[in-house]
Order: sequence, then C-alpha cells, then structure tokens
Amino acid sequence: MSPQIEMHPQRWGDPAAATSLPETARGLIELAFGITEHPMLAGSTPPAPVIGAAALAALEGVVGVEHVLVDDATRALRTRGKSTTDLLKARSGDLSDAPDVVVRPADQAEIEALLAVAASHRLAVVPFGGGTSVTGGLVAARAAYAAVVSLDLVRMKRLLGVDEESMTATLEPGLRGPEAEALLAEHGMTLGHFPQSFEFATVGGFAATRSSGQSSAGYGRFDALVVALTVVTPSGTITVGSAPANAAGPDLRQVFLGSEGTLGVITSVTVRVRRQPVVKEYVGWRWPSFAAGADAMRTLAQEGLLPTVIRLSDEAETAINLADPSSIGGAGDPGCLMITGFEGTQSAVAAKRAALTSLLTDLHGVDLGEEPGLSWVHGRFNAPYLRDSMLDVGVLVETLETATFWSNRERLYADVKAALESTLGEGAIVLCHISHVYETGCSLYFTVAAKEAADPLAQWATAKTAASDAMIAAGATITHHHAVGTDHKPWFEQEIGPVGVQVLRAIKASLDPAGILNPGVLI
Amino acid sequence: MSPQIEMHPQRWGDPAAATSLPETARGLIELAFGITEHPMLAGSTPPAPVIGAAALAALEGVVGVEHVLVDDATRALRTRGKSTTDLLKARSGDLSDAPDVVVRPADQAEIEALLAVAASHRLAVVPFGGGTSVTGGLVAARAAYAAVVSLDLVRMKRLLGVDEESMTATLEPGLRGPEAEALLAEHGMTLGHFPQSFEFATVGGFAATRSSGQSSAGYGRFDALVVALTVVTPSGTITVGSAPANAAGPDLRQVFLGSEGTLGVITSVTVRVRRQPVVKEYVGWRWPSFAAGADAMRTLAQEGLLPTVIRLSDEAETAINLADPSSIGGAGDPGCLMITGFEGTQSAVAAKRAALTSLLTDLHGVDLGEEPGLSWVHGRFNAPYLRDSMLDVGVLVETLETATFWSNRERLYADVKAALESTLGEGAIVLCHISHVYETGCSLYFTVAAKEAADPLAQWATAKTAASDAMIAAGATITHHHAVGTDHKPWFEQEIGPVGVQVLRAIKASLDPAGILNPGVLI
Repeated sequence: MSPQIEMHPQRWGDPAAATSLPETARGLIELAFGITEHPMLAGSTPPAPVIGAAALAALEGVVGVEHVLVDDATRALRTRGKSTTDLLKARSGDLSDAPDVVVRPADQAEIEALLAVAASHRLAVVPFGGGTSVTGGLVAARAAYAAVVSLDLVRMKRLLGVDEESMTATLEPGLRGPEAEALLAEHGMTLGHFPQSFEFATVGGFAATRSSGQSSAGYGRFDALVVALTVVTPSGTITVGSAPANAAGPDLRQVFLGSEGTLGVITSVTVRVRRQPVVKEYVGWRWPSFAAGADAMRTLAQEGLLPTVIRLSDEAETAINLADPSSIGGAGDPGCLMITGFEGTQSAVAAKRAALTSLLTDLHGVDLGEEPGLSWVHGRFNAPYLRDSMLDVGVLVETLETATFWSNRERLYADVKAALESTLGEGAIVLCHISHVYETGCSLYFTVAAKEAADPLAQWATAKTAASDAMIAAGATITHHHAVGTDHKPWFEQEIGPVGVQVLRAIKASLDPAGILNPGVLI
Repeated sequence: MSPQIEMHPQRWGDPAAATSLPETARGLIELAFGITEHPMLAGSTPPAPVIGAAALAALEGVVGVEHVLVDDATRALRTRGKSTTDLLKARSGDLSDAPDVVVRPADQAEIEALLAVAASHRLAVVPFGGGTSVTGGLVAARAAYAAVVSLDLVRMKRLLGVDEESMTATLEPGLRGPEAEALLAEHGMTLGHFPQSFEFATVGGFAATRSSGQSSAGYGRFDALVVALTVVTPSGTITVGSAPANAAGPDLRQVFLGSEGTLGVITSVTVRVRRQPVVKEYVGWRWPSFAAGADAMRTLAQEGLLPTVIRLSDEAETAINLADPSSIGGAGDPGCLMITGFEGTQSAVAAKRAALTSLLTDLHGVDLGEEPGLSWVHGRFNAPYLRDSMLDVGVLVETLETATFWSNRERLYADVKAALESTLGEGAIVLCHISHVYETGCSLYFTVAAKEAADPLAQWATAKTAASDAMIAAGATITHHHAVGTDHKPWFEQEIGPVGVQVLRAIKASLDPAGILNPGVLI
C-alpha cells in the first residue's frame, strides 16, 4: 500500500491541489471586505505527548511498534477536523487538542484488543477516518483520561466482498471515497456517495456521521445505503442487518449509524451499490425566486421524479457564484440557479430528463442547458480550498446546514439568515442553497463570508449560536448531514429531549462502561 | 363514536363477514386430508380477574369507571392475538392468558397517568390496538405482576393534523386501517398501507411491529412512512423525528418502531402520505418457474421500476390458488403467477405500466391481463377467514415469513420448505410467495396446510421450530413483517446476537425500570 496523501494540518486537502484565489474573487473580496493578509503561523507543534510507558507498550503489543506513532507531525495531522474554527486554531498555532498517540490497527481483531487495552489503561479512543469532521467530532474531552489515542483506520482499506446478484458490497472503514469507488468500479459498480469531503472522507466516517452526498437524491443518503455493519464495542462485537428489511424489533443499524465513534468502532459496512452509470448529464434551470424553485423541487419529490442530483441556490448564492450573471442565460436579475443531474443507462436518463423537462417547463422554469451543470460538476469539491484562500486574506468563511418539512422551509430560511446577518458584523454575506430534497421536506445549506473580527473564534461562535438557536426554535434539526460532534451538542440535546438523551446514555453506559470511546462527543 | 365491530374471540374478523368454505375448496380438502368436523368449544370464559381493589380504583381514577372493564366478554376479546396457535387455544376453551382488566384511556395524558399507576401497583401493561398479532405479542408474562392490564387504544382515533404542503398527517394509534384511510380521504390523501390485517389492525400496531403491506413496494413499509412519533414511556414522554432526514445522532424513531409495546405506548404517529390514486390497475404475469419470476422481480427492483404492488407465487401456491389453471391463461402447467399493481395519476400509471410491460416481456414473462389481478384484489383480505373454515374441518393452516438478500433466496426457500414438509406430517402442503421486493433482496411468505394431528399445538410448534432454525441457519431474518412477540424470541436473540440483546435490555431498563410494559415480549 503506498502512503496516502495527508491533509495539511492547517488547511483543507492536498496542498499540491490547492489553487490560489482567482483574480475575480480577489476583486470581489477587496470590494466587499478589503484584503488583509492573514498568514498561518508556520512550524507550530502540538504539546508533547503524555502517555505512560506501560500503556504505550500495551498498544505496541497489539499493533506492532511501527504502528504506534507519537511524533509531532503525525499527531498534528490528527488534531481536530476541518471546521473553520478548527482551521483558525491550527493557523494560530493552537494544536492543544492533539492526541498523545496515533495507533493504526490492521483489522477487527486488533481493534478488539486495542479497546481492551484502552479500558484497562483509561485511554480515550478517538476513531479517525478522513479527519474531515466540521463539528468537532475529533475533539475528545481528555480531562478524565490517562491519554488520548487517535485510532487511525488508514490500514483498513479492503473491499471485503461483492454480491453482484444482491448488488451489495462490504467495505472496510478506512477506504476514502475515491478508493472505494475505484475498487467498486472493477466490478462495474458505484456507491454513488459524493459529499463535498469525498476526496478525503472515509466509509467508516460516512456511516458514523450519517453522511449525505451531492447525488443522494438518486443514490440515497449513506444511512439508507447501509444494509449491514459490524461494530467493535468495548462489550463485544456486533453485526447488524440480516435482511434488506425486517420486523425483528428496533432497527439496531440505526443505533450505530450516527453514533460518531461513541458506541463502537465500525469495522465493516455492507452497502447497497448500483451499476456504474453509462451516461451522466447535468442541466441548469433558472427560477424567478428561491420560493418558486423550492416549490418546483417539492413537486418533483412528491411526484416521484427526483433526478440523481438536485440543488437550488437562493438569489444571493446564485449572484455570487456566477460573477457574470449572463452565464445563466439572462442579463440583469439572475434569479435562482437549480442544478439537476441524471445518471444511469442511456434510456433511463433520457426518460427521466424528458419527464423532468416537461414538468419544470410547465412550472415556468427556464432550461439553461448543460453549461451551468458542467460548471458545477467541475468545481464540486473545491469550496474547502477556496475557504483557505479566503482565510488567508482575512475573510471568515463557514457553512452550516439544517433540514425541515416543506411547510416550515420559508420560516427556517428567514430565521437562520436573519440570525447570521445580525451577528456576523457589517457587510456579512449569507448565501443558501437547498442541498437535499425529500417528499416531505428539504435541507438548507448556508455559507457565510464576513470580514474577520479581532477575535474571529468569538465572532463565529456568536453567529453559530444564534443560527442554531433559530433552528431549534423553528423545530428543525440541528444538522442534516454534518453530524453532532461537540459543536452541536447543546442543541442536539434540545432536539431529542431528555428521554432521548436518556436512551443514548443508557446504550453508551451499557456498551462502553468505562466511557473510553470519543468522550465528550455526541452524548 | 359508534362502537366498532369486535373480532370473534375464537375466529378472525367480523363473524357477519365470514363466508363458509367454498365447495371447490371443500372438495380439495376432502381429497387431500379428509374432512373431520372440529367445532369450537362454545361458551368458554376466561379465568376470573385477579386485581386488588386499590389498583382498580387507581385505574378508575385515571380513565373513569366506565372505561375500566373486567367482564368476561371484554376480557375474552383481548386474549392473545390471531395466530393459529392462539385460535386453537381459544377454540378449545383455553382463555388462560386473558387480561385481568381492560382499560381504555382517552388521550396521552391518561396514558401517562396509567403508566404511573401500573408502576406503583406492579401491573403488567399490554398495549392493545387491533388484536391481530400472529406472534404472541399480546401474551404478557404475568408471574411477577399483581395483574395484567390490557391498555386498549380504541378511544384514540383522531386525525390530529394534516400538512398538505409537506404531505404528512398525524394520526392517533387506535385508528384501524379503514378508519385512517377514511379520515385521510377527506383531504384527498392516502396512507397506502394495506397489510392482510388492514381491516382490523391499527396505526399504533403498524408502528410498533414495523408492519409491511401489500402495496408497500409503491408506498413504502410502515417504518419508512413514519416521519415522527410520540411515545409515552414510564420515564417520560418523547417525540422523535424533527426533519425528513438528519444526521443528529442515532435515529431514535427506529428504536421505538418495532418495540412492540415494550419501551412505551405510541400515542401519535406522523406519517408521509400520498395523493389518492386516480387510477388503479392490476395485471397478472405468468413465469415458467419461481426462479424466473424472482429474477424478473430483482431486475425490476434494481432498475428502479417497481410498481405499487408486486407479488409472485411459487408453483404450488399458483396451482392451489387457481383451482382452474386455465384462469391464468394456459392449460396444463400453470407456472408461477405474479401480480403487479399500479396506482397513481393516469399518466404515471400508464408510463410505469408500459415500462414494466416492456421489461417483463423482454424477460419472457406472459402478460395475463387484468383478470388475475382483479381476482387477487377481490380476495386480498380474505385468507384469515378461510383459515377458520379450514380449522373447522380439521385442517391446520398457518403462515410464516422471512426475508433475505437475493443471492440467498434459493437456499432459504429450499431450506424452509424442506423443514416444514418434513415436520408437518404426511401430505402436508407448503406454499410460498414473494410478498415484498427490494433492490437487495426479498421476503418469502409461506402458507402451510396439514391434517391436524392429535395435538395440533405440538404439531405446529415442531414445524415452526424447524422452519425458524432453518431461517437463522441461512442467515435470514426471523420475521420480515410479523414482528417478534413471544413466538420468535429465541431466534430473534440469535439474529441480533448478545450485544444486540444487551443494547435492547439497556434501553428497556432505562425507560421501564419496573418492567411493566408488555413483559416477556420481544426482549
């Protein structure tokens, strides 16, 4: 196995793949906020590791000395995730949440042994996949523990099995998105899961956080793709999922999906797969308003005509994303841009696209052809790189997301937007798109840009709190696909209520009585 | 509210609706098993109720004296469910599992108060909806309790709300299938949930048992229809489901769905609904073999072309169901009958039916037109009545079901069929159909008929055990849509394993520390 590309400890993704800020964007930023160079503090190191010799020896006894790493560089790369808060801390040299040791098990048996070692030595264990969490899911509460262990799943990258008749595949948790797709492609299959973090995020992380991807309208959210999973808990190993559907009690898959490493370590995931699409077509549509586009989406969902990809930008996001409004087909008011994507066989794509075109035309949408769609495809994984470039010039950029039922969409949109605008400071820009669509409702994905205040961490914390309060007040969820982590905990507890919290604590106490798994996250 | 039709304590459904055995069926039975009249023991009564005066007074204090019933007739009607084992016991006069008292709360607040009374007086509480359980879900383990209370939800039959934009509706648990449909029809909506028990089963029961209906290919299993639910537990009341989909931790809806009254009493269910279909068309198809028909179903599911209804009988079931084989379009070998059904708008039905016809014709299926489909629709809820008529003449009839992935279908079918045939005695008939279809697999629904042995309870127990062992040995689920109850417990525990059992026990112990809810069922 060749070593994989590691993300930069202070930036997103592969430094070699990052491009500098385009001139047009720089011009817009200059106009909106002014340019202030904010370089990262280079050469910062994490605190020295604190771990007893006996614990270290026990870990080495399980995985071998070469897979127990305490060097600064390795630990820096396993420090927190990639929220803007995480990046701001890392850029300022604060690596105080670094794990004491990084351990790389080869298989399930080693994970079982590692959890036993962790329990007996009181080591906090943070399962680590792609390191792309944006909600503090990798920041363990260390106070009560002898040390913090980053349990890196990087060596568990096998395709364990393929069932071409049932169209399922069993994957190890350490496979990154492109790696999983490459292995499945050898069988003519695809998982079809493309979150923005796709290039770095892993199968285990997709399951642990209930990830949702850009093509989930067509392929399904990750939690809907999972037919079975195996989880190593401190109380034993469990495999759940014995049939495509069943009535054998509560669905225990749904207890471990979204458990964010707090109940166990996911060691294999069996997913529904599809045939590789023969054809991929992406088409843009213009709507006079966000509401009109949202109504069209609702109609598609309720008529059972959702394409593989569907997203709709509000007026502000449409205008910003298209520096030249003429590129979506009209001078003056650009309206709102919808991207639709179709993947499958030639005939299925043609039939679906024709049905959609007919329905959206009836609803007075304007077909913009394939150019806006291809432009979106081209840049679909680039936003996190752009954020780094913006941080470099003193602009705070972050995203957050929620979901609700259709009848509550307008209120949620207005309330969250108002909360962000009123707290981010003069001239802040708040953009939104509908990223996922269901028969009964949709998600709202917000992106903000604001001139960095003297204390940008406090600036964002205030805005995030206001937005989160607005979500819960509106009866919406605190997260549609970014998970809970540590950042969303206060609102998560409001969302599920005291009895919900009690249920999760009961499961946690039973499976992880020593409380070693990702302490402080989720529960 | 006019009183609803009660089921007969020893038979299925409405005695007025039951028809006697058709002459053709009687002839077939005479030929296969001989006719032996087995009349029910009339006039049997349940044991006298045992409940303390203080407990009774406390129950009356909550719901009013008129809603606390201890008379024999009411208690007989709340004794067990409608499995063949239940019926055989009731027919022989054994009503030993009768509850001591039947309590009928008006609303959620009364249920909260009732659970408090039950905990303080150590009363076992059995939530009761339609009484249609076929897995012993209404038989509480009474040994450790002062009395057994049947908590009858018959007074909770309101449509609490409709959201026409989000296409959701909130229903009370006591609504029977037709009652829920009638209320939704006033808004032009349908739930689309039609299990064989539809006429008597309730919304609360659908949720508590993860019911699946005859149209679930099109409308979705009941657990997939639920967007939110409210559950009263002894530790407090919880509402789960804040968005169409979310990443806020484990999906707690899926903990209460399938919990069979052991974790709480479901007091409202918010479901996804659809517009009333304008057109309903049902079409029969003939396949040369069960395997060929199953392959066609798999292709439809994996191509995303499932109709609203789809089911496929094996050779034996096809032959038996059609006393005149010519009715499915050919003399001699009838092959296997598939029923497809299409519901929706005129254009959607036409498009879906055309696509299906094209694909199934390519696969060498024979289109039998609408007659076999209409015949199936006509009799779709009648099988349980027929079972009573068969029991009357000494023929043991029962059903069981399971599900697995496509690649395991043939093995599961062969093993369960062999287990039943080898244990039910000379000349036993074993029929099977695929009742539900998914991209990754399907369910198998078996119906058996055998000459009653001297001890028919033991006869069935032996066959059921052999079939259940075969399911678990094949890695399939012990139940696709009949739930666990008490009958499936030993195999359910094998299916989810010791860690799964531990998780369920931890939740149960936390929410119901006194263990008053449906003791002995599921967990």
